[in-house]
Amino acid sequence: MTGHVTLVGAGPGDPELLTMRAARVLSEADVVLYDALVDPRVLDLAGRARRLFVGKRRNRHAVSQETIGKLLVRFARRGERVVRLKAGDPFVFGRGGEEMLACTEAGVSVSVVPGVTSAFAAPLLANIPVTHRGVSRGCVVLTGTPREAYESLLPRLVSQDVTIVLLMALDARAAISAFAIANGFSPTHPAAILCGASTDAAATWIGTLQELPHAVIPEGPPGVLVLGETVRFASGLREIRFENRRAGVIA
Amino acid sequence: MTGHVTLVGAGPGDPELLTMRAARVLSEADVVLYDALVDPRVLDLAGRARRLFVGKRRNRHAVSQETIGKLLVRFARRGERVVRLKAGDPFVFGRGGEEMLACTEAGVSVSVVPGVTSAFAAPLLANIPVTHRGVSRGCVVLTGTPREAYESLLPRLVSQDVTIVLLMALDARAAISAFAIANGFSPTHPAAILCGASTDAAATWIGTLQELPHAVIPEGPPGVLVLGETVRFASGLREIRFENRRAGVIA
Repeated sequence: MTGHVTLVGAGPGDPELLTMRAARVLSEADVVLYDALVDPRVLDLAGRARRLFVGKRRNRHAVSQETIGKLLVRFARRGERVVRLKAGDPFVFGRGGEEMLACTEAGVSVSVVPGVTSAFAAPLLANIPVTHRGVSRGCVVLTGTPREAYESLLPRLVSQDVTIVLLMALDARAAISAFAIANGFSPTHPAAILCGASTDAAATWIGTLQELPHAVIPEGPPGVLVLGETVRFASGLREIRFENRRAGVIA
Repeated sequence: MTGHVTLVGAGPGDPELLTMRAARVLSEADVVLYDALVDPRVLDLAGRARRLFVGKRRNRHAVSQETIGKLLVRFARRGERVVRLKAGDPFVFGRGGEEMLACTEAGVSVSVVPGVTSAFAAPLLANIPVTHRGVSRGCVVLTGTPREAYESLLPRLVSQDVTIVLLMALDARAAISAFAIANGFSPTHPAAILCGASTDAAATWIGTLQELPHAVIPEGPPGVLVLGETVRFASGLREIRFENRRAGVIA
């Protein structure tokens, strides 16, 4: 009897944005290792499974990445069907690659179920198309931590028709604003902060690069920072009724 | 009685990679306007709805973008629940923004359901993490058509630790290869072509930029082109068992 590990993307937050395959894999699981941002209603789909919280919150690692890898391998070797449930998409800054390597290096079979990434879903749910004919020809997804992650690339994106999405960037928003303006971005370059997209805690801030350091955002839900002309759609399309009406406008 | 338009992302191809919300919205639809790349099993979820094919294949537009917008508006004004079903994610080169504008400008309410984008799912299902600590700090999503869409940005991405995903780029792969090498990319920069990700037609080609023009790929299914060091994971991790085992290796 051999076990198996499945890395599953849980989507941006709303349980209904889970894929049908993710729901099936959860219902068949013996044990689920889950992150901080996973909705309890998603966990409930794993009706008969043991549940193990291995989440990280900001810089506090509840369980180290190395330990998570070891746990996945240990449970699979016992013959269990293991689900590693990760917010968003497992491979978009989700460290899914590291967990996959931990399994394969231990000879444990592993598979992946892609999820809806908040990098694209958060802008979409705020009416910001990451690409749009004549406005944005591409999308760049970066992190705000560490600062080297954006400092080498942002200066090269000045005057490019692209939408820039930064994850894990809200704590660094003042630094990002200052760096971008110092490196050629217009102080009035459109910026948006989208917190808790698709959840009850959803909140949207729309402004400009120079206003970004003063953006008042809610404590708690994670958010994405979006820079680009496509942000203008968010205000231009305010009258749109969302399938999910929870988004409000702060500030 | 007012109708409503919902723009729905159908995901990369496998019907099980549809979100649960997409499935629900389809089951409640009166009429569905769908693209060429949508699986018939996904359409079957819209049991009682009329189905209208408005797909585009490569450069042939079966129905113009303007006409699609008018149809959405006309059906909604009749009081119908209209679903616009688009492959992948509606706003990632999906022209969802244009369809949303067509609705709001006509005073028709519109909502969006994000989907799993093939830009991330195709690499993931081929064991290519678009970000990986120490290897790739970000991901850039571009198109291969028109050439201006990549020519302005690619030269700025040389020596950057990013994964580049190009959609609608396979016909242009020889031009992209020549352009990238002429603009500073190493001829041995890793490249991958991932066709029909998550479907029975899935096929993977792994090579380098200089080999890209000679890549033999199947006719038919659409594919994504991936450039970056993270492509090496695809060959290094061959022993991984996929949830969906259909991916083969060509050439």
